[in-house]
This record gives sequence, C-alpha cells and structure tokens, in this order.
Amino acid sequence: MSLTGAYDDDNVFARIVRGELPSVKVFEDDVTLAIMDAFPQAEGHVLVIHKASKARNLLDVEPQALSELTATVQRMARAMTAALDPDGLLLTQFNGAPAGQTVFHLHFHLIPRREGEALARHGGGMAPADQLQAVAAKIRAAL
Amino acid sequence: MSLTGAYDDDNVFARIVRGELPSVKVFEDDVTLAIMDAFPQAEGHVLVIHKASKARNLLDVEPQALSELTATVQRMARAMTAALDPDGLLLTQFNGAPAGQTVFHLHFHLIPRREGEALARHGGGMAPADQLQAVAAKIRAAL
Repeated sequence: MSLTGAYDDDNVFARIVRGELPSVKVFEDDVTLAIMDAFPQAEGHVLVIHKASKARNLLDVEPQALSELTATVQRMARAMTAALDPDGLLLTQFNGAPAGQTVFHLHFHLIPRREGEALARHGGGMAPADQLQAVAAKIRAAL
Repeated sequence: MSLTGAYDDDNVFARIVRGELPSVKVFEDDVTLAIMDAFPQAEGHVLVIHKASKARNLLDVEPQALSELTATVQRMARAMTAALDPDGLLLTQFNGAPAGQTVFHLHFHLIPRREGEALARHGGGMAPADQLQAVAAKIRAAL
C-alpha cells in the first residue's frame, strides 16, 4: 500500500535539496526550504520541504522535523498573505498516491485563493520560470 | 478581508470545547482535541483543534499551539492509518472563506482516501451519530 515503503533518495525534492535539479527558491534556513511549485494550482503556490528528513509523509516524519516544517509553513503563509493579499490561503499535504501525492518526500502545499477562481489541476501546466521568479521575489520581500 | 478579523468566542468549535455543543471525541489531551467531522467528506474524517488558542487560522496561531496541534495531527494520522487502513490520507487546513473555511477557529482536517472514491462536498450531508461513534471507537483503539 502506498502509505508505507522505502524512501527513494532520487525523488525530485531530494535532488532539488542536493542542487541536482533547479528550483525557484523563496526561503531557506538550516533545515527547511520553500520553493515555488513548478506546476502551480494558483499563482503563488509554494511548497515547503525539509532538507534533512527522509520522511515520505506525515506518518513517518520525526516530531522535530515536523515542528520545523510547520514553523516554516506559518512563516511562508504570513509572507504570502502580506505579499499577495489573497482572499484565502489553502494548506494541503497529501499522503499516498490515492490522496494526490506524486513526490514521496513529505511536503506541504500553500496555495493562495481568490474569490471565484477555481484551482487548477495539480500537476497540470508548468509555469514559466520568469513568472515563478517574479512571484517568489514578491514573497521574499515580505519575509 | 477574510484572513483577518476578531476571534468569535461563540464559534462552533469554541462551544464544543466548552461542552456547550455535542461532538464525537476521538482523542483529547491537555491542549488539543480531535473529533469526528459531523459533515464528513469521507468515512473517518477527523478534525483537530486547539482547546486554548483563540487563533482563527494559520496566520495568527501562536507557535507553541501550532506545534501542539501538528503533534496531535500526526498522532491521529497514525491511529487512523492503523485503524482504517486507507489507501491515502489527506491533510487540509483552510484559511478564509474563499479557501473553504466555515468555522473561524483554526482546525486541521484529516481525511482517509480510498482508490477510486471521490471526496464528498465539504459540509454536504450530516453523518448519523452512531456511524461516527463506531468509526471513532475504531480509531481510539489504535491510539
């Protein structure tokens, strides 16, 4: 079943953390990293991941790493709200493929919501890097 | 705008915490409470709330309360997985009405997912109390 299994060291986020794949970074501290989702469900869609924990999901993450992650999630939520002034903000975290998980390295989604605007399908279109860079710069300025 | 505003002491979760409204409890410690969602999006839909914090959402919650909440979220996620053996588990948290928030007391949703089963609309049908009690008992047994 998809909620258990071995951590794959070559998953996309592990490779981003190691610098083997590019990403649009918004925030980084010693233990966590916030990047722009390359397949955003709405403008300003941010992902928060841990840099050291080899947790696949919420079930197997160490309490300390979970606490560090949620602290960064809150920090990002506040900066995104200040920078983008959304009408709402959605936090999601998927465990297992049937729940929508596509990369098996624990990650939190923060998605700005606008009145009357539907969410794009997860993993739908890839956003142009310059568009992601521009939004990331706005969020960074509010950190 | 809906992401800011005063905390309403008479919101449904505040009244549940005070014992003024009934709920189907699954877990309780000194600071947090997990209850069955009376309007489940799938069988086994659990809500985790803080008993003392007067936070409306992720933006205004105290770091300590957030950490306590996520510890209980993980504890419940593990118990739900052990008890219900879902194919996946969805964690959501809504900030502001445009993001789907209906009760303005910070809460986390944990929703078991099954292969090929769509989520019910949030706030759709009310589940019979005996059905919620039965699922709660299964989860409690796995805590």
